[in-house]
Amino acid sequence: MKNLAILGSTGSIGKQTLDIVRSFPDKFRVVGLAGGKNTDLLAEQISEFQPRLAYSSLKLTLPGKTRFSSMEEIASHPEVDLVAIATTGKTGLSPTLAAVRAGKSIALANKEILVMAGEIIITEAKQHRAKILPIDSEHSAIWQCLRGERVGVARLILTTSGGPFYHYSPSQLVRVTVEESLQHPTWKMGKKVTVDSATLMNKGLETIEAHWLFAISFEKIEIIIHPQSIIHSLVEFVDGSLKAQLSFPDMRLPIQYALSYPKRLSNSTLPRIDLAKIKSLTFETIDYARFPCLELALDAGKKGGTYPTVLCAADEIATELFLTRHIRFSDIPTIIAETIGLHHGIANPTLDEILAADAWARETTLKLAKRESLC
Amino acid sequence: MKNLAILGSTGSIGKQTLDIVRSFPDKFRVVGLAGGKNTDLLAEQISEFQPRLAYSSLKLTLPGKTRFSSMEEIASHPEVDLVAIATTGKTGLSPTLAAVRAGKSIALANKEILVMAGEIIITEAKQHRAKILPIDSEHSAIWQCLRGERVGVARLILTTSGGPFYHYSPSQLVRVTVEESLQHPTWKMGKKVTVDSATLMNKGLETIEAHWLFAISFEKIEIIIHPQSIIHSLVEFVDGSLKAQLSFPDMRLPIQYALSYPKRLSNSTLPRIDLAKIKSLTFETIDYARFPCLELALDAGKKGGTYPTVLCAADEIATELFLTRHIRFSDIPTIIAETIGLHHGIANPTLDEILAADAWARETTLKLAKRESLC
Repeated sequence: MKNLAILGSTGSIGKQTLDIVRSFPDKFRVVGLAGGKNTDLLAEQISEFQPRLAYSSLKLTLPGKTRFSSMEEIASHPEVDLVAIATTGKTGLSPTLAAVRAGKSIALANKEILVMAGEIIITEAKQHRAKILPIDSEHSAIWQCLRGERVGVARLILTTSGGPFYHYSPSQLVRVTVEESLQHPTWKMGKKVTVDSATLMNKGLETIEAHWLFAISFEKIEIIIHPQSIIHSLVEFVDGSLKAQLSFPDMRLPIQYALSYPKRLSNSTLPRIDLAKIKSLTFETIDYARFPCLELALDAGKKGGTYPTVLCAADEIATELFLTRHIRFSDIPTIIAETIGLHHGIANPTLDEILAADAWARETTLKLAKRESLC
Repeated sequence: MKNLAILGSTGSIGKQTLDIVRSFPDKFRVVGLAGGKNTDLLAEQISEFQPRLAYSSLKLTLPGKTRFSSMEEIASHPEVDLVAIATTGKTGLSPTLAAVRAGKSIALANKEILVMAGEIIITEAKQHRAKILPIDSEHSAIWQCLRGERVGVARLILTTSGGPFYHYSPSQLVRVTVEESLQHPTWKMGKKVTVDSATLMNKGLETIEAHWLFAISFEKIEIIIHPQSIIHSLVEFVDGSLKAQLSFPDMRLPIQYALSYPKRLSNSTLPRIDLAKIKSLTFETIDYARFPCLELALDAGKKGGTYPTVLCAADEIATELFLTRHIRFSDIPTIIAETIGLHHGIANPTLDEILAADAWARETTLKLAKRESLC
């Protein structure tokens, strides 16, 4: 029986994590839950799973058995074996660090954490013997392919569907609406990550994450277009052999894998692949010039320091401005690039310096958008 | 430095094994060589690699440093770490058993050995802590996918290109010539295995081999058509996740992997895959009715005992009769089925009983062919 804390339990990944818990009542017990604005759902979850600890960002009446706690307290509580970080943005940063310092297993779905503070998290995880277990489908695929072989890796190959606008011309991209950008061809996800998938910023953030998770240089990470989203990523070894992980685009598999690791659990509710029905898996070279957000992310990743934090924060603001119809789809990379251009990076930043860079970038991105009368 | 013995060094797999040895003079040393009828090539190999022990089925003058030995002596010699069994048919059976009993690592390319004597070999390998390392591309793929995960396997999925006649009608199959049958679409191999690939007998033998190598029931082994021969096989786990191994169809990779295991060696002479250039990997359900040899093999595998031996022997004779233009391509399964139909199987056979079944099947297949005036 593993004792779980789930931070961000009311979001897309959080809800699916609880689905997995429901499938294995004898394997997982929920000890802590933390939710955001959706207090109705959080209250339901607390009533169903009866956790000892709960956190809500808004006011919430808790049942007798459940005690109100901070996310940091939940993440580091002695009874907790595994902390699922299903928060978004920088919310999960401090609780993740608390879990790391308590030597927990951490199932990580919140990309921004490693993008912003990869060096700190990975260094402290080693010190405290905490395990970072990726939940993103691409990183889960790589992690699965690396089982039993930590040496001899030549390249990681991240796949991307290319998003809904892969074949759009620059003039078509300018006219992309919010509604169009929220139609992902293969995955159902939250709004922010769906827009990030359309700009391919998401793949850039994943590349930075992979760099930290698998201790591999950016030069050894490639991205390839694979429209069917069946092969979730590949590892090439030094002898030329490639290993790939395949499954239907369903986040419950990587979630369950992270929860059950090192075991694999039989789960009949997860879909099976029939390759003969799928018939064809196709691949295309990525045209980086069509995806300025991807290039910005790779560039920020290579620069390191506070640059990835600025990238993340500027992207969050720019995406929000697009979703609220203040800027156009094609303004997203422009405004992020301008923000990054104004930043004076700090190498090996402390957590405070990272948070300061984050605040600076949010303010700057908004200011730039206003000055250009975009909003 | 690993000390190698290579039995069948003058055949296709043997020559490629020596190519790998040439690439890593500081990793592998050849201690023993055994060759068949091509004594000129064997003499060259002995002169180049200066093994301590050599065997030739025909007369051969050996240089001073090299001593004539039996294949069994070479396979079990104390100096030998790994024995590559690159022989064909039943020739390698007795030397393999000698290597098993001496607790060696055995890189196995000779399919018939596990098909004929799987139970004996696997049982004795456990007793003597010998390791059986597959060289066949499909089994190497499965072995690579199973690294780090020996439990939680739901299915093995063997891929096949379908061979050169996959889309032929029954009437076209009757007219297939020897020359056509030797044109494999993706692999360059010896004549016997190329014809076995065209009848899909080869995939049937591989299924029986996989059953023994990975201790998995026939019900959990599937075959799928994959014309490009890039994915060499897949493993499906109980959670619905699949792992695949990909590489260009080049036997040197699985050979090198078996020799270097558990390490992977960087080898620039091995080709790299560029998925964007390959563009598409396709899959089709196999139509078992089109491949009677495959059905015969799966049936013999499930029956067990001496049936797989009879299958192997009858196939060897029938293929030879086809290659020498005595019977038609479509006669191959007919004559094998007739031989199997006449056999009284023995369960849990001894090695002598296996060899007796082999002799009986060869004789019977020839008799049947003559009686039907096929030759």
